Amino acid sequence: MSTKVRVGIVGYGNVGRGVEVALGQNEDMELVAVFTRRPVETVKIATPSAKVVHMDELEGYKGAIDVMILCGGSATDLPVQGPEMASMFNTIDSFDTHARIPEYQAAVEKAAKAAGKTSIISVGWDPGLFSMIRMMSGAILPKGNDYTFWGKGVSQGHSDAIRRVEGVKNGIQYTIPVDSAIEAVRNGNNPSLTTREKHTRECFVVAEEGADRARIEADIKNMPNYFADYDTTVHFITEEELRANHSKMPHGGFVFRSGVTGANDEHKQIIEFSLKLDSNPEFTAAALVAYARAAVRMNKEGTLGAKTVFDVPLSYLSPLSSAELIKNLL
Amino acid sequence: MSTKVRVGIVGYGNVGRGVEVALGQNEDMELVAVFTRRPVETVKIATPSAKVVHMDELEGYKGAIDVMILCGGSATDLPVQGPEMASMFNTIDSFDTHARIPEYQAAVEKAAKAAGKTSIISVGWDPGLFSMIRMMSGAILPKGNDYTFWGKGVSQGHSDAIRRVEGVKNGIQYTIPVDSAIEAVRNGNNPSLTTREKHTRECFVVAEEGADRARIEADIKNMPNYFADYDTTVHFITEEELRANHSKMPHGGFVFRSGVTGANDEHKQIIEFSLKLDSNPEFTAAALVAYARAAVRMNKEGTLGAKTVFDVPLSYLSPLSSAELIKNLL
Repeated sequence: MSTKVRVGIVGYGNVGRGVEVALGQNEDMELVAVFTRRPVETVKIATPSAKVVHMDELEGYKGAIDVMILCGGSATDLPVQGPEMASMFNTIDSFDTHARIPEYQAAVEKAAKAAGKTSIISVGWDPGLFSMIRMMSGAILPKGNDYTFWGKGVSQGHSDAIRRVEGVKNGIQYTIPVDSAIEAVRNGNNPSLTTREKHTRECFVVAEEGADRARIEADIKNMPNYFADYDTTVHFITEEELRANHSKMPHGGFVFRSGVTGANDEHKQIIEFSLKLDSNPEFTAAALVAYARAAVRMNKEGTLGAKTVFDVPLSYLSPLSSAELIKNLL
Repeated sequence: MSTKVRVGIVGYGNVGRGVEVALGQNEDMELVAVFTRRPVETVKIATPSAKVVHMDELEGYKGAIDVMILCGGSATDLPVQGPEMASMFNTIDSFDTHARIPEYQAAVEKAAKAAGKTSIISVGWDPGLFSMIRMMSGAILPKGNDYTFWGKGVSQGHSDAIRRVEGVKNGIQYTIPVDSAIEAVRNGNNPSLTTREKHTRECFVVAEEGADRARIEADIKNMPNYFADYDTTVHFITEEELRANHSKMPHGGFVFRSGVTGANDEHKQIIEFSLKLDSNPEFTAAALVAYARAAVRMNKEGTLGAKTVFDVPLSYLSPLSSAELIKNLL
């Protein structure tokens, strides 16, 4: 490619900053602007050649940006932004509310098709890479079971839930996969695993002064949906300890396909995929950037509408030519 | 799809038989015929509804078969068969002579394009799934290192090499990845590993009566390319022990991408993919069958020529609709 892929970032939180850093690792791409709802003078970015632009002026960038990477949240930002942006730009997002993906896709599809644009939705690692492994592994080994484990990592949803408990000043929650369950799956035992047998939950809580710690612990452990079905451990720590030891955002997980082949199903075939991430948002951002490259290429080829990771040939993620990929990586 | 994908198998060795069994796990596909160079009455297949047909009569099946799965070897069969078959049928193969893939692809591409057919070459797990993981992981984490380990599993090439040693009646070789090397990679240490540090080789040898075992062991251990660069163990066993304990064809391996993200490369991000296969040929066969489905679909859409796993959207491997994939697997 003679010219660089011109990228815009919408939303400058953890993922947005991760996208900016990831673009620096990809020489065929460049950041044009970060779009924000905040007063532009309050947002400092790391790329000297790029601008900070208020969302109100976003329309003026039609034609100046090849692909917009949407870094807002799935709860309230993306359901509105996704279709809106897709009516003006090629887009990439990490929409991750599993149950609502079909309706979200339909809305983005309609906007993108009408505008002649290409969107790739729900990019990241789950949904994203984990989905891809589940899908292709199941197609190759139709007789078998899927297993997905998450962690060890910080769950934002569960951390938020802890912080809503009365008497809790601050807190963080780690989701931890159970080693013995992973080993059983890895060995092809095809175990039936309850929720409790797959993951444990570990909470680090800063209590307000004078709060009843026993009651806080009970409130957390008995919280329906979030903790009641799990073996949960609660540790009380100081605000300083929380800042010093729990400010990172690690995550990861495991996807297994445990299948059988052979005339009598006599051969076990185990596929395992895992991620061990020091920074969850930065890894998600790195995936978004690779798929941004793909969206631009698909759009040039006339593949329009709202696509998912299942629709994208893997070669489109790479800046290398087909001949280079075959020579070096096949 | 209202009608089944009609499949032919060319070559009825371990992989060919594996394809036949795999087709039985895929309700949208059916085996039409097995094509062989041997006298047809000597080949017994497991599918009552399918025929055994001599290769000389293969041309008569144009139009009766949607995709031909080529199960011959890469050394002598496929270089001839690949282009020949691609001039008549959509094809899938597991051509695995890495260095010769570009010229093989060019030959198949020419034949397939001229005939309006679609071929997907070098399908399987390496080349194949491992290549896909290497490719997409590198695109997502451009700053990092790739590591591939093979085994524990039987290497046909090394087993053949043993059997060519004077005084050796029979033998088998296992390639074994070094656990400590895998652990170092998994922990993000980015080690520089020599050939010797990555894999060991274990040989089980049946010596001819009266043969000089010490000389056989030395000949094996000092064999250039195959064993000299490795720590090799040689065990002498009886023909009965070989049959009883070493008649399976397990294999597997590990692919890692160990990358960094962050403004100062401060976050390690580890992607790991592994296979643990009781039957190497049956797993390869299962992958061939899923890609056969994809080749037929790509051909219907007018995507012609010799493609690789890098060119195929993952959804094409599955019999499920796009909406089902999104609902169940994204």
